Amino acid sequence: MNFVNIWGATTLIVCLAVGVASPAIAQVDHDEDREFISRLFEQALTQRQSYIWLRDLCLEIGPRLSGSSNAAKSIEWVKYISDTSGFDHVFLQDVKVPHWERGEAEQAVLTDSKGNELELSVLAIGGSIATPPGGITGQVLEVGSLQEVNRLTKEKVEGKILFYNPPFDQSNIMTGASYGANVGTRSRGAVTAAEKGAIASIIRSVTSADDDYPHTGTGSYADGVPKIPAAALGVQSADRLSEVIAKDPEATLRLTMNCQWFEDAPSHNVVAEMRGSEYPDQIIVVGGHLDSWDVGHGAHDDGAGCMHALGALKLLKELGINPKRTIRAVMFINEENGTRGGHRYAELAVENEEKHLIAIESDAGGFTPRGFGVTSSDEQRKKLEGWLPLFPRNTISYFSRGGGGVDIGPLHRATGTPMMGLSIDSQRMFDLHHSARDVFEEVHPRELELGTASLAAIIYLLDKYGL
Amino acid sequence: MNFVNIWGATTLIVCLAVGVASPAIAQVDHDEDREFISRLFEQALTQRQSYIWLRDLCLEIGPRLSGSSNAAKSIEWVKYISDTSGFDHVFLQDVKVPHWERGEAEQAVLTDSKGNELELSVLAIGGSIATPPGGITGQVLEVGSLQEVNRLTKEKVEGKILFYNPPFDQSNIMTGASYGANVGTRSRGAVTAAEKGAIASIIRSVTSADDDYPHTGTGSYADGVPKIPAAALGVQSADRLSEVIAKDPEATLRLTMNCQWFEDAPSHNVVAEMRGSEYPDQIIVVGGHLDSWDVGHGAHDDGAGCMHALGALKLLKELGINPKRTIRAVMFINEENGTRGGHRYAELAVENEEKHLIAIESDAGGFTPRGFGVTSSDEQRKKLEGWLPLFPRNTISYFSRGGGGVDIGPLHRATGTPMMGLSIDSQRMFDLHHSARDVFEEVHPRELELGTASLAAIIYLLDKYGL
Repeated sequence: MNFVNIWGATTLIVCLAVGVASPAIAQVDHDEDREFISRLFEQALTQRQSYIWLRDLCLEIGPRLSGSSNAAKSIEWVKYISDTSGFDHVFLQDVKVPHWERGEAEQAVLTDSKGNELELSVLAIGGSIATPPGGITGQVLEVGSLQEVNRLTKEKVEGKILFYNPPFDQSNIMTGASYGANVGTRSRGAVTAAEKGAIASIIRSVTSADDDYPHTGTGSYADGVPKIPAAALGVQSADRLSEVIAKDPEATLRLTMNCQWFEDAPSHNVVAEMRGSEYPDQIIVVGGHLDSWDVGHGAHDDGAGCMHALGALKLLKELGINPKRTIRAVMFINEENGTRGGHRYAELAVENEEKHLIAIESDAGGFTPRGFGVTSSDEQRKKLEGWLPLFPRNTISYFSRGGGGVDIGPLHRATGTPMMGLSIDSQRMFDLHHSARDVFEEVHPRELELGTASLAAIIYLLDKYGL
Repeated sequence: MNFVNIWGATTLIVCLAVGVASPAIAQVDHDEDREFISRLFEQALTQRQSYIWLRDLCLEIGPRLSGSSNAAKSIEWVKYISDTSGFDHVFLQDVKVPHWERGEAEQAVLTDSKGNELELSVLAIGGSIATPPGGITGQVLEVGSLQEVNRLTKEKVEGKILFYNPPFDQSNIMTGASYGANVGTRSRGAVTAAEKGAIASIIRSVTSADDDYPHTGTGSYADGVPKIPAAALGVQSADRLSEVIAKDPEATLRLTMNCQWFEDAPSHNVVAEMRGSEYPDQIIVVGGHLDSWDVGHGAHDDGAGCMHALGALKLLKELGINPKRTIRAVMFINEENGTRGGHRYAELAVENEEKHLIAIESDAGGFTPRGFGVTSSDEQRKKLEGWLPLFPRNTISYFSRGGGGVDIGPLHRATGTPMMGLSIDSQRMFDLHHSARDVFEEVHPRELELGTASLAAIIYLLDKYGL
């Protein structure tokens, strides 16, 4: 019996034709760029520096909510690895950050009218007040949206626990759209509920998963509206709660949360810089945020983005780039619950009259990169699109209109600096985002490193050709 | 404290601009196509038919090597789900397939010169002969390639176990290229080793992972060359073996394998067909292969491809398409160790004078799709490229030169039918391919369904506009 599987051979043929050369750009003077970009990808995929760093960040330090001792440790650690990477200048930017702690684990216990108890999977929404000791108990009123609450009478809501239970819309190809559609229940649900007299606000976690991990994230209160406890249930718990109260409206939920607010804490952005040799005053900044929620490892959100940014600088340095412009990696603090680091960076840029060519952020996870979303003039975006043929196949395939990042938004708004965000394959992101599932083990080394190399490639081109 | 995370909002802006409308194609008459394709993706992502089917195939039936009772069950099952899906015609194509069984679990025990034993993680390479009862024992000679063996003297190899240990090249963006570079050690290693007098051939598994799961796959023997046992070690086991024999060349390996060949078994391709209303004689065929290796679930390889193909037909049917041309989903048998199903399909096509417009295969896994690899005239490929703007962003972004599939190759070669293969993000594929890790749990529902919808979309366009 003599047979040979030709899967490999077939694939090989497909794979050898890497890079889609369009006639417009396949000129001799770009061969060097194509070759260099190819080396960036090779080096990232074989060396795996971002992945090795991310492992340390996740497994040695772990989650790092603003104001926590872990956040402080992570800042110290990022400064250390930057200092020892041979960059021209590494410095901290001081900023005060909010400091909230979850405290002892939350509890949500559903008791039906026969006295049967069911424990639900729950996390406080970030920034929530605690319940009174012993918890808060009430009947549960389910709604599908903030709008629906606005249409309810106070009478119907008063004294109840309001339960936002909209399903995650799986029909969108880019899951961020579905996240965006529901995240208002988390960020504004407590205010809307309290305006109608609810005693607490709970939500179905804003997630694409169908497991029972609750997903936290930031919530808000408004002046003049009573502050009520706010929490998120795992999706399966939300389904159970919905089933039970549909049949048994007398069922009650007891919610116990031990969260606490502290004084603002001193903290820092970490900046690593390669100085420009020709135009040192033109800054290309690339960043992610170092803080994370206090569950899981903050691996995809946004350890990945920080290691993308710092890894991109290291790659350029190792491949011998002496940049014409100044290139900065910034590990911002406090994206998750305040954006203080992003605001501080913008404030200092204005104060110091810094000129930024562009600001780039990676805060969409460590999965396979697909493109960039760009907020710039059409002309600038066209210039970026002209570089598409320089990216190897199955890496960056578009520069789309609109995009940036939470941390670079303040700089963009304060100075008009163009900004863009690395667009990442989003199919898995909201399965784990802001939950205990966002751990290092969910990051694939090759996928992560493709992001690092994509950033290094675009920085290389921006440095060489401007915008 | 009033803060709102704008991650969602930012993402939302990025996400709303779906589809890159190029001026060349953004004509009124394609609006309907864009709209329909968008519905295909929505339906696939929300209904998850391919995923539900794949779960049954993996968890109710499991692995299904040609000739096994599981393979027979899976054929029956696929025929059943096809029969109950309302297609116009469902039929079997008879074909005899090779029948090889692994038998009782293999063993590989390394004994150093002090008598210390170490058990290595091992799988027989598909099609291998057994060792004698009690195993085969010999010293181990490590090489990096087939070429290296060709340069060795018989004296050096004779009586030894040859150990191919080339590392997986992580530098390629498309991992199929690295797989293709090393897979010869698996498919031809035993022949090359036996020609020099080796008593067995073992390889470092051809995988991108760094765990200790061995990866099987098909091997071959040649007429006139002694048949020797062939096996694959997990990567960590290969590293351990390499370390030990480097220090202690007197160490011996005892390999015990209980594989067995049986008579060719009767089997079938399963064909599900929607009849064309205008050009019933023009056939668009899309397929995957139903057989798998005998470890894991054959989830990505290639349960995913079968459910992609059948799911695509079902999607088109459910969205009310009455095709002009005849559309066939074929679940081929015996891709892994013989391609008998693919050859049988081609043979019957020639016999029945069938005219195929194009043949499409999905056999690169169930991860996120990226494009298509096409073997056709340049003019035909250009026509396909003209449809790129009709695919939503983050789905199909190229129709590259070269590509197809093992099962549709015989039809292409026999009739000149153009062929193409669905190109899938390959970062994770060779971590699990042909190993016990290729299980249902490694498939993400959304990623799988994007593949189904991509196939349905290209079939829709091919049916409507021809090629």
